[in-house]
Amino acid sequence: MTGSPSTRTVSRRGLLAGGTLAAGGALAGGAVVATVGDGEAADRPPGAQPVPVAAVGGLVEPFHGPRQAGVATEPQAHAAFVAFTLRPGTDRAALGRLLRLLTDDAARLTQGRPALADTEAELGLLPARLTVTFGFGPGLYRAAGLDDRRPASVVDLPSLRIDRLQPAWSGGDLLLQICADDAVTVAHAQRVLVKDSRPFATVRWVQQGFRRGPGVEPAGHTQRNLFGQLDGTANPRPGAPLDTAVWVPDGPAWLRDSTTLVVRRIRMDLETWDLLGRTDRELAVGRRLDTGAPLTGTAEHDEPDFAATGDDGLTVIPDFSHLTRARVTDDRQKILRRPYNYDGVPTPQGHADSGLIFAAYQADITAQFLPIQRRLAERDLLNEWTTPIGSAVFAVPPGCPPDGWIGQQVLG
Amino acid sequence: MTGSPSTRTVSRRGLLAGGTLAAGGALAGGAVVATVGDGEAADRPPGAQPVPVAAVGGLVEPFHGPRQAGVATEPQAHAAFVAFTLRPGTDRAALGRLLRLLTDDAARLTQGRPALADTEAELGLLPARLTVTFGFGPGLYRAAGLDDRRPASVVDLPSLRIDRLQPAWSGGDLLLQICADDAVTVAHAQRVLVKDSRPFATVRWVQQGFRRGPGVEPAGHTQRNLFGQLDGTANPRPGAPLDTAVWVPDGPAWLRDSTTLVVRRIRMDLETWDLLGRTDRELAVGRRLDTGAPLTGTAEHDEPDFAATGDDGLTVIPDFSHLTRARVTDDRQKILRRPYNYDGVPTPQGHADSGLIFAAYQADITAQFLPIQRRLAERDLLNEWTTPIGSAVFAVPPGCPPDGWIGQQVLG
Ligand code: HEM
Ligand code: HEM
Repeated sequence: MTGSPSTRTVSRRGLLAGGTLAAGGALAGGAVVATVGDGEAADRPPGAQPVPVAAVGGLVEPFHGPRQAGVATEPQAHAAFVAFTLRPGTDRAALGRLLRLLTDDAARLTQGRPALADTEAELGLLPARLTVTFGFGPGLYRAAGLDDRRPASVVDLPSLRIDRLQPAWSGGDLLLQICADDAVTVAHAQRVLVKDSRPFATVRWVQQGFRRGPGVEPAGHTQRNLFGQLDGTANPRPGAPLDTAVWVPDGPAWLRDSTTLVVRRIRMDLETWDLLGRTDRELAVGRRLDTGAPLTGTAEHDEPDFAATGDDGLTVIPDFSHLTRARVTDDRQKILRRPYNYDGVPTPQGHADSGLIFAAYQADITAQFLPIQRRLAERDLLNEWTTPIGSAVFAVPPGCPPDGWIGQQVLG
Repeated sequence: MTGSPSTRTVSRRGLLAGGTLAAGGALAGGAVVATVGDGEAADRPPGAQPVPVAAVGGLVEPFHGPRQAGVATEPQAHAAFVAFTLRPGTDRAALGRLLRLLTDDAARLTQGRPALADTEAELGLLPARLTVTFGFGPGLYRAAGLDDRRPASVVDLPSLRIDRLQPAWSGGDLLLQICADDAVTVAHAQRVLVKDSRPFATVRWVQQGFRRGPGVEPAGHTQRNLFGQLDGTANPRPGAPLDTAVWVPDGPAWLRDSTTLVVRRIRMDLETWDLLGRTDRELAVGRRLDTGAPLTGTAEHDEPDFAATGDDGLTVIPDFSHLTRARVTDDRQKILRRPYNYDGVPTPQGHADSGLIFAAYQADITAQFLPIQRRLAERDLLNEWTTPIGSAVFAVPPGCPPDGWIGQQVLG
């Protein structure tokens, strides 16, 4: 997998200027900064274009801009979702100080420069497409006395009969979604950001997840989750469809170019799933396990034919399949799924603790996420093997220019 | 980082023959299998030689051979150390059945072929340099009634005054060290191996760790741990020095070409470490943070001069520095450190849960590991910021040919 079209590489000059480590440091030798062209990567035939050995570490995602990074960004291999509870007394002014600080950290680290007073400065030099995405929970608006600036759909989801939510994985006033193609980079960024937030907030939960790493599969391939399913096929495509689904097109400055994020921790019960035959697994989703094609087609991106019936008179794609229930065709009603796998420690009896950190971005939770989630909660064959155990909702405010900070339009 | 000299790539034929997924499956398109030459990679100028996009996923470490893989193998980016407790009744014959099964799983998965009856077969196709290394704890020899075949040095370490060992991270009858350059590959291999072990053993502990990923730094660079230190500089070099340190050169079949493994979980206290200035940090280890050079030199691999004194009459490298105390010059007394970083969930107050899964390989624990560990436990400045919280020892039996199984020389 290569970076999104706007991915750049760390410039040597930026690196040397930004760190405490000039020549002779970890980056001496001239080999770290590779030149992967801007933008063409996605258009190349998969596998045809080489990435130089040290290219992964030097790749940079832009931080500043009208919209936050880490949303439309081609998902990186590693993620830490860090949710905070604001300390009593963290009001509008304090939130401004906190967010100025965290914005500065993120702006530096994502560009391959150590944070200010970075105590492990050498770990800040290889961004590996690091992004830090800020989410504001309902509690943040309350603490700031700015409930009227909370996007209306950012409220706790209604409780669903499939939910088995644990407080330990739910809620949060502030979220940082930290993603990079390297786990050391994520760990260091998490350390810096958590440390700087301590006067203002406590850590509520952290969820660490992973996807296939860079170069493991050719660019553009849909990834598999731990059930072995191709997961991501019907996501809105980059460009107009994605933009329509995800970004708020207009409104006041604190709303335009914002989006919302739902984070659900969903346990996947490998023990019972593994007892199923392939046919039953494929019926549960409505797609083939090998190619990801709908049961009525032959290739991954074939249009499913929900009307087609088999010899038994039943629809080939079951009415209660995940595909049928989740299906949305209008881009304005779609969601962008950007999930990560999690894999905890198995029980002594060897039962896996696996699942998805299901992260969905959409312009409006009520209009887009909720109808799909309701249809799934009501009747989705996959519910038999999946259980939501955590849930949280966040507004993702607009991005900021180099002289601004994330949240400025809301809190400033 | 590229593979060890003997790394190969998955052959398309092997893939198609071994899986349930012939043409039309996840690997259709011809782009997955890349050609990274065998062996020359390490000699190339860093960054000069491109790795095709999908090369990382297709790289294969050999499984069969006189010695187990995963020891001299260039460390992969991700590891799961899985320790088991044998169920009562798992005797010599049962152990033979268990190890035949796990050997078959490992032989397939490491070569990019799904395990027999692999319920997520599609996840078994991208080995990403997967290795599975088998370790036998003292309890395994007892259960088999073969205590006379236990390498003499494989006994619980004497307790040290620095130890704060927790049972939850200590001991184990059987260990699987599962390493790959991709986290999904590690999760899938862990799932298969744990599932097949269930009739014979329970899971005692699992430790998941990470290092910089492939392509993040140029090949051959020493990695940094979460203190930001270059960690691995003075490891015995591949070839004769490493072989001398690690492999038992002769003896009965169950001993020759074996090695031993010490796994220590060592907490690194970032809270107090981060309060130190750079000078104090460098004095604690005896090396510079930026270049990794000894305090008496300028380049990472310069020989330290332990006699050199400063203006104050004290040695430039403190007598109680980690470098001075850990120093060994005779290859027969060295250990091969193959550590992984861990980074758990911070406390609500934002204190990190970070450290090393310190894995050391050596021919003999008593003769090599223990003298170093004793010197460090006695007086090592680094002890101020590090705490061993887990400890386990294992014999790593010889490898096996294609018609054999790991442990056959011991249990057969
Ligand atoms: C662990 C839980 C889940 C698993 C394993 C899972 C798996 C899948 C798979 C395999 C597909 C088909 C391929 C694709 O288009 O990606 C799919 C599609 C989809 N899923 Fe899920 N999913 C889960 C939970 C959810 C949830 C909670 C939602 C939203 C509330 C959701 C919404 C969708 C949507 C919108 C599609 C695309 C449907 C289409 O238009 O074709 N999924 N999912
Ligand atoms: C969290 C705990 C530890 C940390 C952070 C750490 C860090 C380091 C660092 C930075 C170096 C210098 C660079 C290098 O040669 O790799 C080093 C060297 C070394 N360490 Fe450690 N270490 C730790 C624990 C241990 C333990 C438990 C042992 C063995 C019992 C050990 C044995 C050695 C040896 C043998 C050397 C090489 C010394 C030489 O010959 O130059 N270390 N360690």
